[in-house]
Amino acid sequence: MTAPTDNLRINGERLWDSLMEMAKIGPGVRGGNNRQTLTDADAEGRKLFQSWCEAAGLSMGVDQMGTMFMTRPGTDPDALPVYVGSHLDTQPTGGKYDGVLGVLSALEVVRSLNDLGIQTKHPIVVTNWTNEEGARFSPAMLASGVFAGEIPLDYAYGRKDPEGKIFGEELQRIGWVGEETVGARKMHAYLEYHIEQGPILEAHDKPIGVVTHGQGLWWLEVTLTGKEAHTGSTPMNMRVNAGLAMARILEMVQKVAMDSQPGCVGGVGQMFFSPNSRNVLPGKVVFTIDIRSPELAKLTAMRARIEEEAPKIAEALGVGFAIEPVGHFDPVTFDPILVGRVRAAAERLGYGHMDIISGAGHDACWAARVAPTTMIMCPCVDGLSHNEDETITPEWATAGADVLLHAVLETAEIVG
Amino acid sequence: MTAPTDNLRINGERLWDSLMEMAKIGPGVRGGNNRQTLTDADAEGRKLFQSWCEAAGLSMGVDQMGTMFMTRPGTDPDALPVYVGSHLDTQPTGGKYDGVLGVLSALEVVRSLNDLGIQTKHPIVVTNWTNEEGARFSPAMLASGVFAGEIPLDYAYGRKDPEGKIFGEELQRIGWVGEETVGARKMHAYLEYHIEQGPILEAHDKPIGVVTHGQGLWWLEVTLTGKEAHTGSTPMNMRVNAGLAMARILEMVQKVAMDSQPGCVGGVGQMFFSPNSRNVLPGKVVFTIDIRSPELAKLTAMRARIEEEAPKIAEALGVGFAIEPVGHFDPVTFDPILVGRVRAAAERLGYGHMDIISGAGHDACWAARVAPTTMIMCPCVDGLSHNEDETITPEWATAGADVLLHAVLETAEIVG
Repeated sequence: MTAPTDNLRINGERLWDSLMEMAKIGPGVRGGNNRQTLTDADAEGRKLFQSWCEAAGLSMGVDQMGTMFMTRPGTDPDALPVYVGSHLDTQPTGGKYDGVLGVLSALEVVRSLNDLGIQTKHPIVVTNWTNEEGARFSPAMLASGVFAGEIPLDYAYGRKDPEGKIFGEELQRIGWVGEETVGARKMHAYLEYHIEQGPILEAHDKPIGVVTHGQGLWWLEVTLTGKEAHTGSTPMNMRVNAGLAMARILEMVQKVAMDSQPGCVGGVGQMFFSPNSRNVLPGKVVFTIDIRSPELAKLTAMRARIEEEAPKIAEALGVGFAIEPVGHFDPVTFDPILVGRVRAAAERLGYGHMDIISGAGHDACWAARVAPTTMIMCPCVDGLSHNEDETITPEWATAGADVLLHAVLETAEIVG
Repeated sequence: MTAPTDNLRINGERLWDSLMEMAKIGPGVRGGNNRQTLTDADAEGRKLFQSWCEAAGLSMGVDQMGTMFMTRPGTDPDALPVYVGSHLDTQPTGGKYDGVLGVLSALEVVRSLNDLGIQTKHPIVVTNWTNEEGARFSPAMLASGVFAGEIPLDYAYGRKDPEGKIFGEELQRIGWVGEETVGARKMHAYLEYHIEQGPILEAHDKPIGVVTHGQGLWWLEVTLTGKEAHTGSTPMNMRVNAGLAMARILEMVQKVAMDSQPGCVGGVGQMFFSPNSRNVLPGKVVFTIDIRSPELAKLTAMRARIEEEAPKIAEALGVGFAIEPVGHFDPVTFDPILVGRVRAAAERLGYGHMDIISGAGHDACWAARVAPTTMIMCPCVDGLSHNEDETITPEWATAGADVLLHAVLETAEIVG
């Protein structure tokens, strides 16, 4: 078997048209998408995707988590399939590309193989994972987590959205509970193409990110208990100021992240003051620290330092302190053979590329637990994602899908 | 006219029973009250108060802001009334006494005069100001601010609560838009009895605070504009971190307040992160700085220093900065003659007392603009207020109401 030749390309225009067509379903309020998992819009998006897959000759399997597996047969009945995909669900104020690009590029790979009459030894399975975003039902990457055996199915089924609706019931309601046991499928490999969701590729003017690692993360939820008291009539020396303790802990998290460079990040996105009134010092402040690193040792050290220093900061102010991990995964090292194929494909096709670490979590991070896995990334304008203004260019979309085509073909093995 | 004799006392048991009865309306979640302004609970509280006043022979007037004026006639048709009151609305997690003690003690003064058959030259008007708390519709002390000519009626009517409901419409909905022009009433004097909402009287073991001044305040709403970005895929050096700028500004506010001791306070009770998601750096952080001092020069200097330093902190992080005053009043010096009457009454009645500055804003601070005004305070346990655990003893409640009775009688002038 030889590598595909450099004139083998996907149809960029068809890919872009499909992206724009899918974006019409579950429109956002200012140009992006709100196609959250297990909503009517999600069901409509799935139907459209199914119709496209069937038109491309793929046959559908659906597992108990609603994940869609669309199979193009291989020539060897004993060869395990190469899985290629991502997710069609979006954030409540999400973009058109996060996840969608990966699913529709996988479909475009198959469409292009059909056009060219190319057969592969291994089947190719275009995959749409349920609830990658986790915005409606936490945690994120729920279906791939169950698939990888990291999250129990019952736990996933019982997750509630902010309105109290239950995952299992909503999956039933939209009609996408499949019969396949989750995780029963065995994979020859898993490949996922995704927008970067960060600013690095654009800053380096590289259309292709060769993803070598996925960052590990800890989400640490901190609860500070102060004394709820009047802002005017409580002298400074009699305050138990949870807000001030929070400020000092944020500064410390920043320092821990900076001290851990290169390659580590730390910050806070979610913050609740209680009772959150202008003239009441907060009785309670709750926030989540998000720390990440591709290196397990650094990640562990950051967590340990935060858990050592934060309670001291609170104690010095007389503020009650509790910290609880509410999210975690270990760093992922993607399969070196697959990573090498992605890098070689970018070279062969003449696309600028650089090695990159995935800062965000992806279904590929769970898939890596059960199969050789890698990812390809393309830039997004200004690093913006989880935002309706998320933008990529058709050229970027095409470049990554071309690389995906080559990497998939090398892995699924062209026949004849 | 002579001072009332020291055997003239209010009925402490009846006052306490009324406090407990009112506290049944709009109960909190752990023993306090949630009877926020212009809610159904507020309407119910008003009805109960009205029925008590009418049973005591008072006649009701209501102004366009819904403030309730319950009049006991005087003997001189030309004498301006003595107004005595506070507010019945509470914080969302408020106590049973903040405001309520002042209104029901004013009613108890009238009930006691009825019991004893005492007439006064000046009418006495028991007053319940609308929306003192400002928790639902900012700013605080809204109706008294309009009464004093400091806040335009239209502005007050247009204020929105966090759900977007409009003050004027909510006042209409609960049926308490009166016909009287706000501020048309002229006052001979205004007296307000209130819990301290701070820890000083209890620490000095004094049941009576003779309030000589009210602190001035500024509420400064800060809006920080960061770059909404993924917490995982945005390197530390490419972040525009509004949360970090917020933390540094909180620390600076703390320092400004500490540098301005004695007698100044500064802190933050209200904080909003947007979009407030665990894996998104905030695009926007909005919070309100509350600074107070009884000295105008210190208050002005604190504000100036915050407005000088805060934008520099934001700018150093590339974060957009805006600051807007959303609440203000100058420090208040209460009427020396009324203050002297309160002090003399405490002496005469044998209650321990000390001069004190009001740390919180009160309707009396606005009333002081249009009439001779003063306040009386009683301790509250642990200085706790704006908190469901807010506690006072029946003995404290009675002592302050006794002093109020004497100060009111000296001002309204006993006849015969």
